[in-house]
Amino acid sequence: MRLEIFGVEGLPEIGAGADLAGLIAGAAGLAGGDVVVVTQKIVSKAENAMAAVDPNDPRSHQPVVERESVRVLRRRDNLIISETKHGFVCANAGVDRSNVASGMVALLPDDPDRSARRIRDGIRARAGVEVGVIISDTFGRPWRRGVTDVAIGIAGIRPILDLRGTPDASGRELQVTEVAISDELAAAAELVMGKAAGVPVAVIRGVDPAWLGPGSIQQDLIRPPTEDLFR
Amino acid sequence: MRLEIFGVEGLPEIGAGADLAGLIAGAAGLAGGDVVVVTQKIVSKAENAMAAVDPNDPRSHQPVVERESVRVLRRRDNLIISETKHGFVCANAGVDRSNVASGMVALLPDDPDRSARRIRDGIRARAGVEVGVIISDTFGRPWRRGVTDVAIGIAGIRPILDLRGTPDASGRELQVTEVAISDELAAAAELVMGKAAGVPVAVIRGVDPAWLGPGSIQQDLIRPPTEDLFR
Repeated sequence: MRLEIFGVEGLPEIGAGADLAGLIAGAAGLAGGDVVVVTQKIVSKAENAMAAVDPNDPRSHQPVVERESVRVLRRRDNLIISETKHGFVCANAGVDRSNVASGMVALLPDDPDRSARRIRDGIRARAGVEVGVIISDTFGRPWRRGVTDVAIGIAGIRPILDLRGTPDASGRELQVTEVAISDELAAAAELVMGKAAGVPVAVIRGVDPAWLGPGSIQQDLIRPPTEDLFR
Repeated sequence: MRLEIFGVEGLPEIGAGADLAGLIAGAAGLAGGDVVVVTQKIVSKAENAMAAVDPNDPRSHQPVVERESVRVLRRRDNLIISETKHGFVCANAGVDRSNVASGMVALLPDDPDRSARRIRDGIRARAGVEVGVIISDTFGRPWRRGVTDVAIGIAGIRPILDLRGTPDASGRELQVTEVAISDELAAAAELVMGKAAGVPVAVIRGVDPAWLGPGSIQQDLIRPPTEDLFR
Protein backbone atom coordinates (compact mmCIF):
# COMPACT_ATOMS: atom_id res chain seq x y z
CA MET A 1 0.00 0.00 0.00
CA ARG A 2 1.17 3.50 -0.81
CA LEU A 3 -0.38 6.67 0.61
CA GLU A 4 0.04 10.20 -0.68
CA ILE A 5 -0.67 13.14 1.62
CA PHE A 6 -0.80 16.73 0.48
CA GLY A 7 -2.09 20.05 1.72
CA VAL A 8 -4.81 21.95 -0.14
CA GLU A 9 -3.45 25.35 -1.14
CA GLY A 10 -5.34 28.47 -2.09
CA LEU A 11 -8.27 28.40 0.30
CA PRO A 12 -9.43 31.90 1.31
CA GLU A 13 -9.69 33.09 4.92
CA ILE A 14 -12.80 31.35 6.31
CA GLY A 15 -15.58 33.38 7.94
CA ALA A 16 -18.99 32.63 9.41
CA GLY A 17 -21.28 31.01 6.86
CA ALA A 18 -18.48 29.98 4.50
CA ASP A 19 -19.33 27.07 2.19
CA LEU A 20 -16.45 24.79 3.20
CA ALA A 21 -17.49 21.89 0.97
CA GLY A 22 -17.68 24.14 -2.08
CA LEU A 23 -14.36 25.81 -1.33
CA ILE A 24 -12.61 22.46 -0.77
CA ALA A 25 -14.17 20.86 -3.85
CA GLY A 26 -13.04 23.86 -5.90
CA ALA A 27 -9.48 23.93 -4.60
CA ALA A 28 -8.51 20.29 -4.10
CA GLY A 29 -8.94 18.21 -7.26
CA LEU A 30 -10.51 15.37 -5.29
CA ALA A 31 -10.86 11.77 -6.45
CA GLY A 32 -13.28 9.11 -5.20
CA GLY A 33 -11.89 7.30 -2.15
CA ASP A 34 -9.79 10.24 -0.97
CA VAL A 35 -9.89 11.14 2.71
CA VAL A 36 -10.21 14.89 3.30
CA VAL A 37 -8.92 16.12 6.66
CA VAL A 38 -10.23 19.53 7.76
CA THR A 39 -8.87 21.31 10.84
CA GLN A 40 -11.42 22.14 13.51
CA LYS A 41 -10.50 25.83 13.41
CA ILE A 42 -12.02 26.55 10.00
CA VAL A 43 -15.07 24.41 10.78
CA SER A 44 -15.66 26.43 13.95
CA LYS A 45 -15.21 29.68 12.01
CA ALA A 46 -17.63 28.61 9.26
CA GLU A 47 -20.18 27.52 11.89
CA ASN A 48 -19.53 30.66 13.95
CA ALA A 49 -18.64 28.59 17.01
CA MET A 50 -16.76 31.53 18.50
CA ALA A 51 -16.83 33.59 21.67
CA ALA A 52 -15.58 37.08 22.48
CA VAL A 53 -12.91 37.58 25.15
CA ASP A 54 -10.89 40.49 26.50
CA PRO A 55 -7.77 40.52 24.26
CA ASN A 56 -5.70 42.20 26.99
CA ASP A 57 -6.37 39.59 29.69
CA PRO A 58 -4.56 36.25 29.20
CA ARG A 59 -7.07 34.57 31.54
CA SER A 60 -10.18 35.91 29.85
CA HIS A 61 -10.82 32.61 28.07
CA GLN A 62 -11.20 30.78 31.37
CA PRO A 63 -14.93 31.44 31.92
CA VAL A 64 -15.48 30.21 28.35
CA VAL A 65 -13.50 27.05 29.14
CA GLU A 66 -15.62 26.47 32.26
CA ARG A 67 -18.80 26.90 30.23
CA GLU A 68 -17.61 24.43 27.58
CA SER A 69 -16.65 21.81 30.21
CA VAL A 70 -18.95 19.24 31.77
CA ARG A 71 -16.25 18.05 34.20
CA VAL A 72 -12.79 19.23 35.17
CA LEU A 73 -10.20 16.44 35.54
CA ARG A 74 -7.07 18.46 36.39
CA ARG A 75 -6.11 22.09 36.89
CA ARG A 76 -2.65 23.67 36.99
CA ASP A 77 -1.89 27.38 36.57
CA ASN A 78 -3.61 28.53 33.38
CA LEU A 79 -4.28 24.98 32.17
CA ILE A 80 -7.52 23.10 32.63
CA ILE A 81 -7.91 19.47 31.48
CA SER A 82 -11.62 18.84 31.19
CA GLU A 83 -14.28 16.77 29.52
CA THR A 84 -16.47 18.47 26.93
CA LYS A 85 -20.13 17.79 26.26
CA HIS A 86 -18.97 15.60 23.34
CA GLY A 87 -16.97 13.39 25.75
CA PHE A 88 -13.55 14.64 24.63
CA VAL A 89 -10.94 14.98 27.36
CA CYS A 90 -8.58 17.77 26.34
CA ALA A 91 -6.87 20.99 27.38
CA ASN A 92 -9.09 24.04 27.87
CA ALA A 93 -12.15 22.20 26.51
CA GLY A 94 -10.81 22.83 23.01
CA VAL A 95 -11.14 26.61 23.41
CA ASP A 96 -8.27 28.17 21.43
CA ARG A 97 -6.97 31.64 20.57
CA SER A 98 -4.54 30.76 17.75
CA ASN A 99 -5.37 31.56 14.16
CA VAL A 100 -8.46 33.57 15.14
CA ALA A 101 -8.95 37.32 15.30
CA SER A 102 -7.79 39.18 18.38
CA GLY A 103 -10.53 39.33 21.03
CA MET A 104 -12.09 36.06 19.90
CA VAL A 105 -11.64 32.39 20.76
CA ALA A 106 -12.76 29.40 18.75
CA LEU A 107 -14.93 26.75 20.41
CA LEU A 108 -15.33 23.15 19.28
CA PRO A 109 -18.10 22.59 16.73
CA ASP A 110 -21.44 21.70 18.31
CA ASP A 111 -21.49 18.22 16.69
CA PRO A 112 -18.26 17.48 14.79
CA ASP A 113 -19.60 14.24 13.25
CA ARG A 114 -22.47 16.28 11.79
CA SER A 115 -19.99 18.90 10.55
CA ALA A 116 -18.06 16.13 8.77
CA ARG A 117 -21.25 14.71 7.22
CA ARG A 118 -22.21 18.15 5.88
CA ILE A 119 -18.81 18.58 4.24
CA ARG A 120 -18.89 15.08 2.76
CA ASP A 121 -22.42 15.58 1.42
CA GLY A 122 -21.46 18.98 0.02
CA ILE A 123 -18.39 17.57 -1.73
CA ARG A 124 -20.50 14.79 -3.24
CA ALA A 125 -22.98 17.40 -4.51
CA ARG A 126 -20.33 19.76 -5.94
CA ALA A 127 -17.63 17.42 -7.22
CA GLY A 128 -19.56 14.18 -7.71
CA VAL A 129 -17.05 12.17 -5.69
CA GLU A 130 -17.48 10.04 -2.59
CA VAL A 131 -14.80 10.91 -0.03
CA GLY A 132 -14.21 10.31 3.64
CA VAL A 133 -14.07 13.44 5.81
CA ILE A 134 -12.24 13.88 9.13
CA ILE A 135 -12.46 16.97 11.33
CA SER A 136 -9.15 17.11 13.20
CA ASP A 137 -8.01 18.90 16.32
CA THR A 138 -4.75 19.10 18.25
CA PHE A 139 -4.73 17.36 21.65
CA GLY A 140 -2.04 16.77 24.26
CA ARG A 141 -1.51 13.39 25.87
CA PRO A 142 -0.70 12.24 29.41
CA TRP A 143 2.83 10.87 29.88
CA ARG A 144 4.21 12.15 26.56
CA ARG A 145 5.28 15.68 25.69
CA GLY A 146 3.97 17.45 22.65
CA VAL A 147 0.66 17.40 20.83
CA THR A 148 -0.71 15.35 17.95
CA ASP A 149 -3.78 15.75 15.81
CA VAL A 150 -6.74 13.42 16.39
CA ALA A 151 -10.15 13.00 14.77
CA ILE A 152 -13.03 14.78 16.52
CA GLY A 153 -15.62 14.12 13.81
CA ILE A 154 -15.87 11.79 10.82
CA ALA A 155 -18.09 10.90 7.87
CA GLY A 156 -17.60 8.06 5.40
CA ILE A 157 -14.48 6.73 7.11
CA ARG A 158 -14.36 4.16 9.89
CA PRO A 159 -13.05 5.32 13.28
CA ILE A 160 -11.57 1.95 14.18
CA LEU A 161 -10.36 -0.99 12.15
CA ASP A 162 -11.51 -4.04 14.07
CA LEU A 163 -9.05 -6.90 13.57
CA ARG A 164 -10.42 -9.16 16.30
CA GLY A 165 -10.21 -12.75 15.10
CA THR A 166 -7.68 -11.87 12.39
CA PRO A 167 -4.59 -14.09 12.40
CA ASP A 168 -1.18 -12.42 12.66
CA ALA A 169 1.67 -13.20 10.26
CA SER A 170 2.48 -16.36 12.24
CA GLY A 171 -1.12 -17.59 12.18
CA ARG A 172 -2.03 -16.79 15.79
CA GLU A 173 -4.86 -14.50 16.76
CA LEU A 174 -3.82 -10.85 17.07
CA GLN A 175 -3.72 -9.37 20.56
CA VAL A 176 -3.89 -5.72 19.57
CA THR A 177 -6.95 -5.58 17.50
CA GLU A 178 -8.67 -2.23 17.31
CA VAL A 179 -6.64 0.30 15.37
CA ALA A 180 -7.82 3.92 15.58
CA ILE A 181 -7.28 4.62 11.88
CA SER A 182 -9.16 7.95 11.90
CA ASP A 183 -6.77 9.27 14.57
CA GLU A 184 -3.76 7.96 12.63
CA LEU A 185 -5.07 9.65 9.46
CA ALA A 186 -5.56 12.94 11.36
CA ALA A 187 -1.99 12.71 12.69
CA ALA A 188 -0.63 11.98 9.22
CA ALA A 189 -2.48 14.97 7.76
CA GLU A 190 -1.10 17.33 10.42
CA LEU A 191 2.40 16.63 9.05
CA VAL A 192 1.58 18.46 5.81
CA MET A 193 -0.57 21.20 7.36
CA GLY A 194 1.63 22.52 10.13
CA LYS A 195 0.44 24.81 12.87
CA ALA A 196 1.88 28.01 11.44
CA ALA A 197 1.51 27.47 7.71
CA GLY A 198 -2.17 28.26 7.34
CA VAL A 199 -2.96 25.10 5.36
CA PRO A 200 -6.19 23.98 7.02
CA VAL A 201 -7.14 21.07 4.72
CA ALA A 202 -5.18 18.00 3.58
CA VAL A 203 -5.98 15.10 1.29
CA ILE A 204 -4.90 11.49 1.89
CA ARG A 205 -4.98 9.40 -1.27
CA GLY A 206 -4.63 5.64 -1.53
CA VAL A 207 -6.40 4.43 1.61
CA ASP A 208 -7.74 0.90 1.71
CA PRO A 209 -11.35 1.04 0.39
CA ALA A 210 -12.33 -1.20 3.32
CA TRP A 211 -11.67 1.77 5.64
CA LEU A 212 -14.45 3.78 4.00
CA GLY A 213 -17.82 3.29 5.62
CA PRO A 214 -20.12 4.53 8.34
CA GLY A 215 -18.98 5.56 11.79
CA SER A 216 -18.98 8.27 14.45
CA ILE A 217 -16.24 9.57 16.72
CA GLN A 218 -18.66 10.44 19.48
CA GLN A 219 -20.43 7.06 19.48
CA ASP A 220 -17.63 4.69 18.49
CA LEU A 221 -14.31 6.20 19.59
CA ILE A 222 -14.94 7.96 22.87
CA ARG A 223 -14.30 5.42 25.62
CA PRO A 224 -17.33 5.06 27.88
CA PRO A 225 -16.56 5.94 31.53
CA THR A 226 -17.22 2.34 32.60
CA GLU A 227 -14.37 1.12 30.34
CA ASP A 228 -12.04 3.93 31.28
CA LEU A 229 -9.27 3.44 33.84
CA PHE A 230 -8.21 7.13 33.88
CA ARG A 231 -11.44 9.10 34.25
CA MET B 1 4.34 19.76 1.12
CA ARG B 2 3.61 16.27 -0.15
CA LEU B 3 4.43 13.06 1.70
CA GLU B 4 4.59 9.58 0.28
CA ILE B 5 4.33 6.59 2.60
CA PHE B 6 4.92 3.01 1.52
CA GLY B 7 5.62 -0.35 3.14
CA VAL B 8 8.86 -2.21 2.50
CA GLU B 9 8.04 -5.58 0.97
CA GLY B 10 10.16 -8.69 0.79
CA LEU B 11 11.86 -8.69 4.18
CA PRO B 12 12.51 -12.21 5.51
CA GLU B 13 11.31 -13.48 8.90
CA ILE B 14 13.58 -11.78 11.46
CA GLY B 15 15.47 -13.84 14.04
CA ALA B 16 18.01 -13.14 16.78
CA GLY B 17 21.13 -11.46 15.41
CA ALA B 18 19.51 -10.39 12.12
CA ASP B 19 21.21 -7.44 10.42
CA LEU B 20 18.16 -5.17 10.22
CA ALA B 21 20.01 -2.22 8.66
CA GLY B 22 21.43 -4.41 5.91
CA LEU B 23 18.08 -6.09 5.22
CA ILE B 24 16.24 -2.74 5.09
CA ALA B 25 18.92 -1.09 2.93
CA GLY B 26 18.74 -4.05 0.53
CA ALA B 27 14.93 -4.13 0.29
CA ALA B 28 13.86 -0.51 0.42
CA GLY B 29 15.52 1.65 -2.27
CA LEU B 30 16.13 4.45 0.23
CA ALA B 31 16.91 8.07 -0.62
CA GLY B 32 18.59 10.69 1.57
CA GLY B 33 16.10 12.45 3.83
CA ASP B 34 13.71 9.49 3.99
CA VAL B 35 12.30 8.52 7.37
CA VAL B 36 12.37 4.76 7.98
CA VAL B 37 9.84 3.47 10.50
CA VAL B 38 10.60 0.04 11.97
CA THR B 39 8.14 -1.80 14.21
CA GLN B 40 9.40 -2.69 17.66
CA LYS B 41 8.60 -6.37 17.15
CA ILE B 42 11.35 -7.04 14.61
CA VAL B 43 13.84 -4.93 16.60
CA SER B 44 13.09 -7.02 19.69
CA LYS B 45 13.47 -10.22 17.68
CA ALA B 46 16.80 -9.10 16.17
CA GLU B 47 18.06 -8.09 19.62
CA ASN B 48 16.65 -11.27 21.17
CA ALA B 49 14.59 -9.24 23.66
CA MET B 50 12.26 -12.20 24.21
CA ALA B 51 11.05 -14.34 27.10
CA ALA B 52 9.61 -17.85 27.27
CA VAL B 53 6.07 -18.37 28.61
CA ASP B 54 3.71 -21.33 28.96
CA PRO B 55 1.76 -21.30 25.66
CA ASN B 56 -1.21 -23.03 27.31
CA ASP B 57 -1.71 -20.47 30.08
CA PRO B 58 -3.21 -17.14 28.97
CA ARG B 59 -1.87 -15.50 32.16
CA SER B 60 1.68 -16.81 31.85
CA HIS B 61 2.97 -13.47 30.53
CA GLN B 62 1.98 -11.70 33.77
CA PRO B 63 5.17 -12.40 35.74
CA VAL B 64 7.11 -11.09 32.73
CA VAL B 65 4.97 -7.94 32.72
CA GLU B 66 5.62 -7.41 36.44
CA ARG B 67 9.37 -7.81 35.86
CA GLU B 68 9.34 -5.29 33.00
CA SER B 69 7.39 -2.72 35.07
CA VAL B 70 8.85 -0.19 37.47
CA ARG B 71 5.40 0.98 38.62
CA VAL B 72 1.84 -0.22 38.09
CA LEU B 73 -0.68 2.58 37.43
CA ARG B 74 -3.87 0.55 36.90
CA ARG B 75 -4.95 -3.07 36.90
CA ARG B 76 -8.15 -4.63 35.56
CA ASP B 77 -8.66 -8.33 34.80
CA ASN B 78 -5.79 -9.45 32.56
CA LEU B 79 -4.70 -5.87 31.78
CA ILE B 80 -1.92 -4.00 33.55
CA ILE B 81 -1.12 -0.36 32.73
CA SER B 82 2.38 0.26 33.98
CA GLU B 83 5.49 2.36 33.57
CA THR B 84 8.53 0.68 32.05
CA LYS B 85 12.16 1.38 32.94
CA HIS B 86 12.28 3.63 29.86
CA GLY B 87 9.46 5.79 31.28
CA PHE B 88 6.79 4.57 28.83
CA VAL B 89 3.31 4.20 30.27
CA CYS B 90 1.56 1.44 28.32
CA ALA B 91 -0.40 -1.79 28.54
CA ASN B 92 1.44 -4.86 29.82
CA ALA B 93 4.79 -2.99 29.84
CA GLY B 94 4.98 -3.56 26.08
CA VAL B 95 5.13 -7.36 26.52
CA ASP B 96 3.33 -8.88 23.54
CA ARG B 97 2.48 -12.32 22.15
CA SER B 98 1.39 -11.37 18.61
CA ASN B 99 3.62 -12.11 15.65
CA VAL B 100 6.04 -14.14 17.76
CA ALA B 101 6.46 -17.94 18.02
CA SER B 102 4.14 -19.85 20.34
CA GLY B 103 5.59 -20.05 23.86
CA MET B 104 7.45 -16.77 23.51
CA VAL B 105 6.68 -13.10 24.19
CA ALA B 106 8.51 -10.08 22.86
CA LEU B 107 9.81 -7.44 25.31
CA LEU B 108 10.61 -3.83 24.50
CA PRO B 109 14.19 -3.25 23.31
CA ASP B 110 16.59 -2.39 26.12
CA ASP B 111 17.29 1.12 24.73
CA PRO B 112 15.11 1.91 21.70
CA ASP B 113 16.95 5.18 20.89
CA ARG B 114 20.17 3.16 20.67
CA SER B 115 18.41 0.57 18.49
CA ALA B 116 17.35 3.38 16.15
CA ARG B 117 20.88 4.82 16.02
CA ARG B 118 22.31 1.40 15.12
CA ILE B 119 19.88 1.00 12.25
CA ARG B 120 20.54 4.55 11.01
CA ASP B 121 24.32 4.04 11.18
CA GLY B 122 24.03 0.67 9.45
CA ILE B 123 21.90 2.13 6.64
CA ARG B 124 24.45 4.93 6.17
CA ALA B 125 27.24 2.34 5.96
CA ARG B 126 25.40 0.03 3.54
CA ALA B 127 23.44 2.39 1.34
CA GLY B 128 25.40 5.64 1.73
CA VAL B 129 22.25 7.62 2.59
CA GLU B 130 21.40 9.69 5.63
CA VAL B 131 17.90 8.78 6.87
CA GLY B 132 15.87 9.33 10.00
CA VAL B 133 14.87 6.15 11.86
CA ILE B 134 11.87 5.65 14.14
CA ILE B 135 11.20 2.50 16.19
CA SER B 136 7.40 2.35 16.57
CA ASP B 137 5.11 0.51 18.92
CA THR B 138 1.37 0.29 19.37
CA PHE B 139 -0.05 1.96 22.49
CA GLY B 140 -3.56 2.51 23.81
CA ARG B 141 -4.72 5.88 25.12
CA PRO B 142 -6.88 6.96 28.04
CA TRP B 143 -10.32 8.32 27.09
CA ARG B 144 -10.24 7.11 23.45
CA ARG B 145 -10.85 3.61 22.17
CA GLY B 146 -8.41 1.88 19.89
CA VAL B 147 -4.65 1.97 19.56
CA THR B 148 -2.25 4.07 17.52
CA ASP B 149 1.45 3.69 16.79
CA VAL B 150 3.90 6.00 18.56
CA ALA B 151 7.68 6.43 18.47
CA ILE B 152 9.61 4.60 21.21
CA GLY B 153 13.08 5.30 19.79
CA ILE B 154 14.51 7.69 17.20
CA ALA B 155 17.73 8.62 15.42
CA GLY B 156 18.27 11.51 13.03
CA ILE B 157 14.70 12.82 13.35
CA ARG B 158 13.46 15.34 15.89
CA PRO B 159 10.90 14.12 18.44
CA ILE B 160 9.17 17.48 18.71
CA LEU B 161 8.87 20.47 16.43
CA ASP B 162 9.12 23.47 18.71
CA LEU B 163 7.09 26.34 17.31
CA ARG B 164 7.23 28.58 20.39
CA GLY B 165 7.51 32.16 19.23
CA THR B 166 6.29 31.34 15.72
CA PRO B 167 3.44 33.56 14.53
CA ASP B 168 0.24 31.91 13.36
CA ALA B 169 -1.42 32.72 10.03
CA SER B 170 -2.98 35.85 11.57
CA GLY B 171 0.35 37.07 12.97
CA ARG B 172 -0.28 36.23 16.64
CA GLU B 173 1.94 33.91 18.63
CA LEU B 174 0.89 30.25 18.42
CA GLN B 175 -0.61 28.72 21.55
CA VAL B 176 -0.06 25.07 20.69
CA THR B 177 3.60 24.97 19.99
CA GLU B 178 5.25 21.61 20.47
CA VAL B 179 4.17 19.12 17.84
CA ALA B 180 5.18 15.50 18.44
CA ILE B 181 6.18 14.87 14.83
CA SER B 182 7.90 11.54 15.55
CA ASP B 183 4.65 10.18 17.00
CA GLU B 184 2.68 11.52 14.02
CA LEU B 185 5.17 9.90 11.62
CA ALA B 186 4.86 6.58 13.50
CA ALA B 187 1.05 6.79 13.28
CA ALA B 188 1.21 7.60 9.57
CA ALA B 189 3.51 4.63 8.92
CA GLU B 190 1.17 2.22 10.75
CA LEU B 191 -1.47 2.96 8.10
CA VAL B 192 0.60 1.17 5.43
CA MET B 193 1.94 -1.59 7.66
CA GLY B 194 -1.20 -2.95 9.26
CA LYS B 195 -1.22 -5.27 12.23
CA ALA B 196 -1.96 -8.43 10.30
CA ALA B 197 -0.10 -7.84 7.04
CA GLY B 198 3.42 -8.65 8.20
CA VAL B 199 4.95 -5.45 6.74
CA PRO B 200 7.24 -4.38 9.58
CA VAL B 201 9.01 -1.44 7.91
CA ALA B 202 7.68 1.65 6.13
CA VAL B 203 9.32 4.60 4.42
CA ILE B 204 8.07 8.20 4.60
CA ARG B 205 9.43 10.35 1.79
CA GLY B 206 9.19 14.11 1.47
CA VAL B 207 9.53 15.27 5.08
CA ASP B 208 10.71 18.80 5.79
CA PRO B 209 14.54 18.67 6.03
CA ALA B 210 14.24 20.85 9.15
CA TRP B 211 12.73 17.84 10.94
CA LEU B 212 15.92 15.83 10.54
CA GLY B 213 18.37 16.28 13.39
CA PRO B 214 19.36 14.96 16.78
CA GLY B 215 16.92 13.88 19.47
CA SER B 216 15.86 11.13 21.85
CA ILE B 217 12.45 9.79 22.79
CA GLN B 218 13.54 8.87 26.28
CA GLN B 219 15.15 12.24 27.05
CA ASP B 220 12.97 14.65 25.06
CA LEU B 221 9.51 13.13 24.69
CA ILE B 222 8.76 11.29 27.92
CA ARG B 223 7.05 13.78 30.21
CA PRO B 224 8.90 14.10 33.53
CA PRO B 225 6.71 13.13 36.51
CA THR B 226 6.86 16.73 37.85
CA GLU B 227 5.19 17.99 34.64
CA ASP B 228 2.68 15.17 34.51
CA LEU B 229 -0.88 15.62 35.74
CA PHE B 230 -1.84 11.95 35.28
CA ARG B 231 0.97 9.96 36.87
